[in-house]
Amino acid sequence: MTYEFDGQIAVVREDDTTYSAELADGWVVGGGVNGGYLLSVIGNAIRHTLPDKPDPLVISAYYLSAAAPGPATVSVDVRRAGGSVSTVAADLRQGDAPRITALATYGDLGRLGDDVRTTAEEPVLPPPADCVPNTMAPPELRKIAKLMDRFDMRFHPAHMGWAVGEPSGNGELSAWFRLVDGREPDPISLLTVVDALPPVTFDLGMPGWAPTLELTAHVRARPAPGWLKVRHATRNMAGGMFEEDCEVWDSTGRLVAQSRQLARQPRMP
Amino acid sequence: MTYEFDGQIAVVREDDTTYSAELADGWVVGGGVNGGYLLSVIGNAIRHTLPDKPDPLVISAYYLSAAAPGPATVSVDVRRAGGSVSTVAADLRQGDAPRITALATYGDLGRLGDDVRTTAEEPVLPPPADCVPNTMAPPELRKIAKLMDRFDMRFHPAHMGWAVGEPSGNGELSAWFRLVDGREPDPISLLTVVDALPPVTFDLGMPGWAPTLELTAHVRARPAPGWLKVRHATRNMAGGMFEEDCEVWDSTGRLVAQSRQLARQPRMP
Repeated sequence: MTYEFDGQIAVVREDDTTYSAELADGWVVGGGVNGGYLLSVIGNAIRHTLPDKPDPLVISAYYLSAAAPGPATVSVDVRRAGGSVSTVAADLRQGDAPRITALATYGDLGRLGDDVRTTAEEPVLPPPADCVPNTMAPPELRKIAKLMDRFDMRFHPAHMGWAVGEPSGNGELSAWFRLVDGREPDPISLLTVVDALPPVTFDLGMPGWAPTLELTAHVRARPAPGWLKVRHATRNMAGGMFEEDCEVWDSTGRLVAQSRQLARQPRMP
Repeated sequence: MTYEFDGQIAVVREDDTTYSAELADGWVVGGGVNGGYLLSVIGNAIRHTLPDKPDPLVISAYYLSAAAPGPATVSVDVRRAGGSVSTVAADLRQGDAPRITALATYGDLGRLGDDVRTTAEEPVLPPPADCVPNTMAPPELRKIAKLMDRFDMRFHPAHMGWAVGEPSGNGELSAWFRLVDGREPDPISLLTVVDALPPVTFDLGMPGWAPTLELTAHVRARPAPGWLKVRHATRNMAGGMFEEDCEVWDSTGRLVAQSRQLARQPRMP
């Protein structure tokens, strides 16, 4: 069986350094294609380039222009091939238009030691059935955010005041997450998960799209099957920009990914 | 008057895209040259390439091999020249050996709005005179960490248990910081500041050098003159790696820089 998500992030090898992809219409949000999904497409092309180092350990993406559904190419340039880790540069383009330029270091998460001394605390969420599903979003929102049909997301009710005009002002969102097609999470899909929630600025009373300038994700372990917990927070909104930190925890309670992005603050309506 | 630091990060334009630099012996630590200092050298070369966008907003560096004091070149490739921000790729090499590959987005911090809605809390430190100065480090440590002579750092006494064999286990370090030559901080020197403290793993009872795989820094405002406060923390040590978050606050109490790095855990002695 082939999952929808695997088809959507599929790449075809064109030559030693170039892959072609078809950016899926289903990941459109606002005026472009979701940045996390694009990161999974790039991450998949890099994985094909480094067969003995299948996992992103860290990837940094700089967003240059909004992508549109349709054909794209990903070029991958190996900058250092090492014993345990390799570093590459990767560029996603549509025609001549550069969309994303990225750097990444890959390795094999299965070969790392099993020591865990994490002091971060797993988010506490009510059971999925007691959370607010993304399917409750109003039709007009789902029309401009088609990506919402790609996943099953259950928001912490305490972080959903913005949906009824009462944002908490804390700058925090958390939710259960899984892909709607039933595909289990892996290090490549985690690159989508870190940028799938609405901007944390919703919780500050600032609805609207928050364009990402840069996003860096650390993938720290292969996630176990099942629901993921995702938590977004910002601590520094200033000068028209904000940082958004994301943590992803797997069903065993392990912190499997951390990301931080720098984004432009949404313009107030 | 020319400050020592400005001489050490100086670059000379060789052609449209290439700058030469002389990596200073004074920034050696362990088996290489300090990664934060190298980031300031790269940051300075990018600044020369983008005269109307003098400030790093975000820079991501991937460390490929240890640098040695002596000649280096920095090549800068503009990936997108925009109205308010431009994105570049930059590479630092010594001879044929790639040392660091980086991406960065620059702009003009002086032209950003003055709204500040930061919820992060400024670190509380005793006055500098009541903190532990780096000059108290044992001579054998200062010999392998020459960089310690480049700054005046005053550590929070509560985070210094590791110096007497009693690390707190919290994974936190904080200190006052200024360059020893009296040069006031600016966005380029902040790139050094975010990687100047000892690894936060010292506070976890793990002395030793922690090689950086990747470091991304956000510079959010031009710092005011005077002492900086620097805080390092880690929340996710696992699989032989850890993330290290750094915050830099200026003398007016503004959060001027945030960074996160992924580093390899020091080998236990």
